[in-house]
Amino acid sequence: MKKTEVIAENAYVEQLARYEKYKAMGLKLDMSRGKPSKAQLDLSNGLFDILTSKSDFTGSQDYRNYGILDGIPEAKKLFAELSGVKESEIMVLGNASLSIMYDTLQRAMQFGVCGNKPFNEQGKIKWLCPVPGYDRHFAITELFGIEMINVPMTESGPDMDMIEKLVSADEQIKGIWCVPKYSNPQGIVYSDETVRRFAALKPKAADFRIYWDNAYMVHYVTEDVKLLNLLNTAKEYGNEDMVYMFGSTSKITFAGGGVGFMAASENNLASLRKLMGIQTIGYDKLNQLAHVRFFKNAQGILDHMDKHAALMRPKFEKVLEILSAEMDGFASWNEPKGGFFVSVDLPEGTAKRTVFLAKEAGVVFTGAGATYPYKKDPSDSNVRIAPSMPPVEELAIAMEVFCCAAKLAYFEKATGRI
Amino acid sequence: MKKTEVIAENAYVEQLARYEKYKAMGLKLDMSRGKPSKAQLDLSNGLFDILTSKSDFTGSQDYRNYGILDGIPEAKKLFAELSGVKESEIMVLGNASLSIMYDTLQRAMQFGVCGNKPFNEQGKIKWLCPVPGYDRHFAITELFGIEMINVPMTESGPDMDMIEKLVSADEQIKGIWCVPKYSNPQGIVYSDETVRRFAALKPKAADFRIYWDNAYMVHYVTEDVKLLNLLNTAKEYGNEDMVYMFGSTSKITFAGGGVGFMAASENNLASLRKLMGIQTIGYDKLNQLAHVRFFKNAQGILDHMDKHAALMRPKFEKVLEILSAEMDGFASWNEPKGGFFVSVDLPEGTAKRTVFLAKEAGVVFTGAGATYPYKKDPSDSNVRIAPSMPPVEELAIAMEVFCCAAKLAYFEKATGRI
Repeated sequence: MKKTEVIAENAYVEQLARYEKYKAMGLKLDMSRGKPSKAQLDLSNGLFDILTSKSDFTGSQDYRNYGILDGIPEAKKLFAELSGVKESEIMVLGNASLSIMYDTLQRAMQFGVCGNKPFNEQGKIKWLCPVPGYDRHFAITELFGIEMINVPMTESGPDMDMIEKLVSADEQIKGIWCVPKYSNPQGIVYSDETVRRFAALKPKAADFRIYWDNAYMVHYVTEDVKLLNLLNTAKEYGNEDMVYMFGSTSKITFAGGGVGFMAASENNLASLRKLMGIQTIGYDKLNQLAHVRFFKNAQGILDHMDKHAALMRPKFEKVLEILSAEMDGFASWNEPKGGFFVSVDLPEGTAKRTVFLAKEAGVVFTGAGATYPYKKDPSDSNVRIAPSMPPVEELAIAMEVFCCAAKLAYFEKATGRI
Repeated sequence: MKKTEVIAENAYVEQLARYEKYKAMGLKLDMSRGKPSKAQLDLSNGLFDILTSKSDFTGSQDYRNYGILDGIPEAKKLFAELSGVKESEIMVLGNASLSIMYDTLQRAMQFGVCGNKPFNEQGKIKWLCPVPGYDRHFAITELFGIEMINVPMTESGPDMDMIEKLVSADEQIKGIWCVPKYSNPQGIVYSDETVRRFAALKPKAADFRIYWDNAYMVHYVTEDVKLLNLLNTAKEYGNEDMVYMFGSTSKITFAGGGVGFMAASENNLASLRKLMGIQTIGYDKLNQLAHVRFFKNAQGILDHMDKHAALMRPKFEKVLEILSAEMDGFASWNEPKGGFFVSVDLPEGTAKRTVFLAKEAGVVFTGAGATYPYKKDPSDSNVRIAPSMPPVEELAIAMEVFCCAAKLAYFEKATGRI
C-alpha cells in the first residue's frame, strides 16, 4: 500500500464511523426545496385580517364580481412600482409565476410569438439554460421537447460571449431561462454589464425572448444588491420586445397563496392578452386586493422583506460556517447575499452518491443533477442546499451529515470501493 | 296597399313611437353577462371572516406553504360529495373552471390524451357544439382551430341521434361541450335518458372526451331538477375514461375569487396530473381551506344556494312575466328552473337588429349570435337574456325595451324598411 492509499483508507474509515453515528440518530430532515419556514409564513398572517365581511371591495369595480382580465389597477400600480416599470407594462395574474411562464411558453408553442409562426411548426426549437439553474424551468422546456443548451454561469451571470454567439447565429434558439438576482441555486446577481449585454442582444430569431424570472427580486439576506432593470435597458437598444420579466409574492407572503405578475413591453402584453382572454375570464382579484392593502406600496414590501432577511440570515450563516469549517479545500461554494440557496460543488463524480448517503442517514437534499437540464450534471458535482425551512440547530446537524456524506463518497471512490 | 300591409305599417309606427320614448329616457342598463348581483355577492361575505391571523392553517400540512398539486384533502372531500364522485376522482384547482377546461384541451392539443397522439398532429380536429350554447366554450375551440359542428338542443338535451351517429363514424371528432344542468342559455336539464346515451357512447376516437361543464349544478331557481351523474353512469358501460366533469364556486361565492374543480376517472386524472405538475407547483390552498370551513359540507352549499335562489326567483319571474305579456305568439322562450339565463327565439333574421336597437336605447344584451360557434346563428333568432345583475325594477324596463326593439325590428322588415 502506498502512503497516499493509507491516508485515503484511514480517512474512509474515519468518515464511515462518523456516518454510522449520524445514521443511528434516526434523523428526518428535509433540505430539498426552497420552502419558507413557519416563522417566515407567520410574518404575513396579517394578510388574513385585511379583508373582512365589513370591507369595501370596490376599486375600479366590485372586485367580488367578474371583470378585469390582467389585474386590478391597484395591484398593477404596486407591482409596477416594485418592478420599476410602467403600469401599462405589467399584468397581475394568478397565484404563481411558474404557471405564468409555462402558459407564456405554451402560447408560443401553440400560437407563436407576436404574429410569428407557432414554435410547434418551426421544427426543432432550442433554448439556452444557464447552469446550474432552476429544475422547474428545465422541466418545462423538456416537456415541450425543446433542446436545451447548457450555458456556464460565472460570478457575474451566464457566459455572455457564448450567449451572444449562439443567439446571433441560430434562428432555432427561441429563449433563455434567467434568474438574474440571487440566482437559483448559486445566489449570483447578474452584473450591470451582463444585463446590458442581454439588453443589446441581436438574436437571429424575431421570436426570441428572454424569460427573466426575477423570483428573488427583493429577497436579500445580507445585502440588497442592485440589479439593472432589463426592460428599461432593452429600450435603449430598441429591444424591449425581447424581454419577459416574471415575479410573484410566493416567497414574500404565502407559497401558493400569493400573487404572480409579468412585466413586458405594451406590444408583448397586448399580444398575450388576446390569447389569455380565451383561457380565463380573470384571476383572483380579491387576493390581489388583500395584497395591495396589506403592503400599501413597494416600500411596504421592502420593509416586510427586512423581517424575512432577519430570519434567513442566521441560517445562511450556519450553512457557510459549517462549510468553511469542514469543506475548505475539498469543495467550493458561493456566499450568496440573498435568495434561498447555497450551491456547493463537490469533487467530480461524487454529488449523486453524497445525496444518496445523506438520504440514507435521514437528511434529504435536492437530487444531484436537478440543477441541470435533463437532470444531467456532466461532472456530477453540484448540490443545491435549501436552508430556509429547518430551525438553525437542525440545519447544523443536517450540514454536518452533508459534509460527512460528501467526504465518505469521495473516499469510497479514492479507495476504489465504488 | 293591402290590408296586411296597412296593419304592418301601423304596428311599425306604434313601436317606433314607443321606442323613441324609451330612447329619450337615457337608459344605461347591462343584461349582457351572467354576473351575480351585489346582494348575491354579499351572501358570501362571511368567507372573509373565516381565516384570520389567529387561524390554524394546518390540515394535511401547513397550507400557507408549498406542497399539494391537486387540492387539499378537505376540499376534495367537499367537492367530491357535491359532485357525487369518489375523492380519488376529483382535483380541486385554481379560481375558475373555464381555465381548467382550456388547460385540459390545450394539453390534449400539445401532448395528447392518455398516451394518444397530440391533437396538433392529428390533422383537422372536430368538436360537437350543442346550440345554442356558451360563447366562451366556442371561443376556446375556435382559438385552437378546431372545426365546430352544431348539434341542435331539444327539451331533453342535445340531439342524441345525431351525436351517436357522428361520434361513432368520425375519428376526427374528439370532444363535445355540454352544460348539462340549466344549460347556458336555455336552462335545459339533460334527461336521464340523454345522460345514459352519453354514458353509453361508442366514439370511434379513443381520445374522445365529453367536456361536461356542470357550471350550474346547484343553481336552481324554482326547482332543483335532478341530473344523473355522468361519471358514475359511464362506469356501467366501461366508459368512465370518456368523461371530464367541471365545476366551480364562481357563481356560488365570488366570480374570480372562487374555487374550480374537475372530476374524472383515476386513469384520466393520473395522466393530467403528470402534465399539470410541470405547469404549476400547486393552486391557492388557502382559498380552498376558507371555502371548506365556510361551507363545512355539501349541505352547507345547498343551504347557501337557497339564498341565491330567493334572490334570483323574482328576476326570472319578471322576465317571464313581461315576455308572456308582450311576446306571446311572436317569439318563443324557455322557462328555466335554474341557471342564469332566459333564452329567447325571435322571428328569423331579427335577433341582431333587435340587440342593436336595444343598445341604441341604452340596454345592452349579449351580442346576437354569441350563443353559436363562430358567432353565427344560422337563423339570426336567438338572444340570451341575463337577468341576475340589475334590480327587478330596472329589469322590467330593460325587458320592455327588449320586446319593443324586437317588434320594431320585425316590423321594419315586414314593411320593407330593412
